[in-house]
Amino acid sequence: MNIGIVGLGLIGGSLAIDLRSCGHTILGVSRRRETCQQAVGRGIVDAASTDLESMVAADVVFLCTPLRAISSTVEHLLPILPPTTVITDVGSVKASVVKTIAPQWQNFVGGHPMAGTAESGLDAALSGLFVDRPYVLTPIDSTPVEAVERVTSIIAPLQCRIYHCTPEDHDRAVSWISHLPVMVSASLIAACMGEASPIVLKLAQQLASSGFRDTSRVGGGNPELGVMMAMYNQETLLSSLYAYRNQLDQVIQHIEQKDWGALERQLKQTQQTRPQFL
Amino acid sequence: MNIGIVGLGLIGGSLAIDLRSCGHTILGVSRRRETCQQAVGRGIVDAASTDLESMVAADVVFLCTPLRAISSTVEHLLPILPPTTVITDVGSVKASVVKTIAPQWQNFVGGHPMAGTAESGLDAALSGLFVDRPYVLTPIDSTPVEAVERVTSIIAPLQCRIYHCTPEDHDRAVSWISHLPVMVSASLIAACMGEASPIVLKLAQQLASSGFRDTSRVGGGNPELGVMMAMYNQETLLSSLYAYRNQLDQVIQHIEQKDWGALERQLKQTQQTRPQFL
Repeated sequence: MNIGIVGLGLIGGSLAIDLRSCGHTILGVSRRRETCQQAVGRGIVDAASTDLESMVAADVVFLCTPLRAISSTVEHLLPILPPTTVITDVGSVKASVVKTIAPQWQNFVGGHPMAGTAESGLDAALSGLFVDRPYVLTPIDSTPVEAVERVTSIIAPLQCRIYHCTPEDHDRAVSWISHLPVMVSASLIAACMGEASPIVLKLAQQLASSGFRDTSRVGGGNPELGVMMAMYNQETLLSSLYAYRNQLDQVIQHIEQKDWGALERQLKQTQQTRPQFL
Repeated sequence: MNIGIVGLGLIGGSLAIDLRSCGHTILGVSRRRETCQQAVGRGIVDAASTDLESMVAADVVFLCTPLRAISSTVEHLLPILPPTTVITDVGSVKASVVKTIAPQWQNFVGGHPMAGTAESGLDAALSGLFVDRPYVLTPIDSTPVEAVERVTSIIAPLQCRIYHCTPEDHDRAVSWISHLPVMVSASLIAACMGEASPIVLKLAQQLASSGFRDTSRVGGGNPELGVMMAMYNQETLLSSLYAYRNQLDQVIQHIEQKDWGALERQLKQTQQTRPQFL
């Protein structure tokens, strides 16, 4: 099959590598000419262009740009494509993307391959990135079954774990397990940095070990990604944050009131339920 | 030197193993006869007893019981010891321990070796546990220099990183990097478990990966330890929690007001400052 990949970063590049090795013909698009040359030179794609016009030959197009570029990409892409072309995307938020594209293009299937590394860009692309990772598809009532089947037949050989759900359920789920942790974790770092005594701050830095390292990791990640999550999943993330603040207030109240029994019940419950997420 | 170790769990047992291999004579005390037999049988101690009376022969006594047992242990121990005996402890909170013991025993040096594993008890004891780990000593104005020097000379060969600070500064530092993260992390798990839709909850559990795993790790730990932190470091932990809630409220406000610039500045700052804690 001819597969178009718009955006040759970590995800687009890694998809290209794996799908090409499955026997597909890969047509890449990147804004930067050097990235196109690099992708062809490394054998990641069969051909690459800075021009979306090249997508006219694709049976399926994967949109792999950052979330903020999806809407303008779609605006330029749709007039070019024959109506049989299936479009899918890899954005980490789904409701806003589906709301943008689905009314304009029937053969659209929202997608979210949940894989990544700390790196980004084509240099970071690698084969096998999606093995055993979740790949969520978010078809809606109007999505043709054939479009979902075509995307599924392409991604299944990546050995990812495929899930189907509504765009809204996807956004709520990732809000809990991905977007909320970023805000919770960043607030921890910010609170520690607010320590007024230089002696205590220095000591805290010297004594910090795996507990602090793990709890603060995602809060010390890419700021742009954090802002994207908040921007494109604003309402859902806010309701997660409100629920979180309520839980925090409960813990604070138990400690204020020295209600050690209640605190212990709370901590026992979190200890017992955490394994359900692992 | 004759070194007494009261409490043969993970920390007491591991101290015994390393200090014995340094050539000291190790006298252990445990409430349980089987633990005493096991400690002697495995060559962890030279002798062990369920009776604190045996501590009369020790030059230095390490109190390695859980925090809640320290006060009653001291009450029984002090009448037995000659006044030259140096006492030190390994409790993870210092101000309350120092306040309990220092007025009754001049040769007392508060201590906190910051090492551990997910396991507990003598079975988990191992050699080398303290290598390259922080070991905080918290002498106060009235602590004799000789007592601090004696404890230092014993622990330095463990190859730990020794720090000195006031009990209060210790408690503030560990509140930031150890106790606060537990409450922050536990509240995250509790918030996620509160999701009302079984479909979304199930999906969140299926999609959770390293970000959630790391951020939730310490919140899914030993509930008793969490309660101990809150109980013995209550006021300090509360002020950390209040500062944290303020930071969280700022993040919420940025997102409510779609102030993406402010959110990005915040996340850039946490990204930049986190390495200072690693």
